[in-house]
Amino acid sequence: MRIPFETMQAEFKRVLISIGFSDSKADACATIFAENSRDGVYTHGLNRFPVFVQYVKDGLVKPNAEPALLKLSGAIERWDGNLGPGPLNARCCMDRAIALAKEHGIGCVAIRNTNHWMRGGTYGWQAADAGMIGICFTNTTANVPPWGGIDPRLGNNPVVIAVPRDGGHIVLDMAVSQYSFGKLQQYHSNGDELPLPGGYDKEGKLSTNAAAIIDSRRLLPVGFWKGSGLSLMLDLLATVLSQGKSTAEITKSEAEYGVSQVFICIKPSADNNEALIEQILDYTKGGTLINDDESIRYPGESTLKTRRKNMEEGIPVDEAIWAKVQSR
Amino acid sequence: MRIPFETMQAEFKRVLISIGFSDSKADACATIFAENSRDGVYTHGLNRFPVFVQYVKDGLVKPNAEPALLKLSGAIERWDGNLGPGPLNARCCMDRAIALAKEHGIGCVAIRNTNHWMRGGTYGWQAADAGMIGICFTNTTANVPPWGGIDPRLGNNPVVIAVPRDGGHIVLDMAVSQYSFGKLQQYHSNGDELPLPGGYDKEGKLSTNAAAIIDSRRLLPVGFWKGSGLSLMLDLLATVLSQGKSTAEITKSEAEYGVSQVFICIKPSADNNEALIEQILDYTKGGTLINDDESIRYPGESTLKTRRKNMEEGIPVDEAIWAKVQSR
Repeated sequence: MRIPFETMQAEFKRVLISIGFSDSKADACATIFAENSRDGVYTHGLNRFPVFVQYVKDGLVKPNAEPALLKLSGAIERWDGNLGPGPLNARCCMDRAIALAKEHGIGCVAIRNTNHWMRGGTYGWQAADAGMIGICFTNTTANVPPWGGIDPRLGNNPVVIAVPRDGGHIVLDMAVSQYSFGKLQQYHSNGDELPLPGGYDKEGKLSTNAAAIIDSRRLLPVGFWKGSGLSLMLDLLATVLSQGKSTAEITKSEAEYGVSQVFICIKPSADNNEALIEQILDYTKGGTLINDDESIRYPGESTLKTRRKNMEEGIPVDEAIWAKVQSR
Repeated sequence: MRIPFETMQAEFKRVLISIGFSDSKADACATIFAENSRDGVYTHGLNRFPVFVQYVKDGLVKPNAEPALLKLSGAIERWDGNLGPGPLNARCCMDRAIALAKEHGIGCVAIRNTNHWMRGGTYGWQAADAGMIGICFTNTTANVPPWGGIDPRLGNNPVVIAVPRDGGHIVLDMAVSQYSFGKLQQYHSNGDELPLPGGYDKEGKLSTNAAAIIDSRRLLPVGFWKGSGLSLMLDLLATVLSQGKSTAEITKSEAEYGVSQVFICIKPSADNNEALIEQILDYTKGGTLINDDESIRYPGESTLKTRRKNMEEGIPVDEAIWAKVQSR
């Protein structure tokens, strides 16, 4: 089943208003959720929406909280998210980073006490749409064991890097675990094995069973010791710059809320960017393929194709989840 | 055999003067090479020194070239390295990024036409010693196939993230390949197999043979498709921000020179950093160990131990390479 973008956005908005969102906040938040599904990231669009609603009902996400500027110092700002909706706080922060970069060439915004931003790529596309290089990352609850350890003590801390481009932005959106939670859930609900080990089961064996890994919360970091180190650094940066909760503190709660995030924008200053970017993409994509049926793609390349298709034909939905949202 | 730091530095300086370095540039460059060995990164200290000398003799590295500021725009600077020694250019850029961060809270310096910076961590420690969060990365010649491709078309683009800390800075220094070239060379010269596949051999099979991977120039990126995407983004950022050579351009030459780099510093603004950092490290290191004989370490932890030992007992050297340097 496929649902038109406008219908999905309107349904999300209706539900959000019913749980206490103001009209304008419901509209903005519904748009982000619908756009995530529109762009093919169903795990952080429709499929995640019921969880988000539950978080609001549980009081973990405050629907109408406004983020507040705590400190401005040159091209850096520090904000408190006041536990408001993660997607709205993140949009606000990336807007501020864009404004700082317009003024100073580069800008950095850190926010504490915010909530899950859903698809991190959303804010990369936002920066690139404004003509900016965007970099952002978030910490999470512990779900990755540090290298040499058994217990999950690191987050899989998604990081986003976006470069604006006339022919379609280049947007990397990756958790530092080999598979994001969303991907694990997708493999699990499709009943598929992971193509590569994605973590450890409860017995400590490397596993391709998504359910076993979700259960153990022992996701494998990208590059083993390297992803372990990278995850730690991202948590340090997010926590220190926002003066917020670290993965250690976030994990003390049953639910993941009150996380710390960083948004950086850089203004590309020169005119030759498009030629340089095309040169890089042409070279990268121009080599011999392992499988002639598949192409070498840049991050974000398939997003635009999916977006176009889903806007034309409607957004594919999990019928049970869609029915659940409609019946609220 | 172990050599005192001062002896090693003096030998490097003598050789550099003999190939045309001014006294002050020879001194600064020799110090960086000796410090790299002092900190245990022998592959980019003594062991790399003869290659560096050859690059100077081949005219690829201009010993007395000065980097030049091309454009200043708020908290961003763009420089031309004029093909000078990579370590000196990188030191200069990180100094400028530190100064910009002192003024604006955050600063970004991009440099084109520079050369291999040897150990990237050098500039992370430099930023952290100045009390700054430091982030820097470089592009390289192609040595990693993009995901889905056979030919090396991406660099392994090392990236450094440093967080200052009273009890010893936390400094991540990682190539986006599972093993850096230095590590591959180390395994190769020790005659050891890699503990995990590090790339593909010429037949396209995943391999734990370092020599076969060095030969094929088909290093495996961290996290497979993820490291492939990350490598592309780092090349895009370095090339666009510096308006310099991309991996595509660098690879056209037989030798790797004239690369592009980015240096970012952020001033941590709050007083609570040390407590937050210790909380994160305590939590990360405090979990159950896989092997009771080994601890969970943070990036840079062993560097300080090695530094102390090598300053007390002398720096261990490969005797053949040391003899080669001495005989110059």
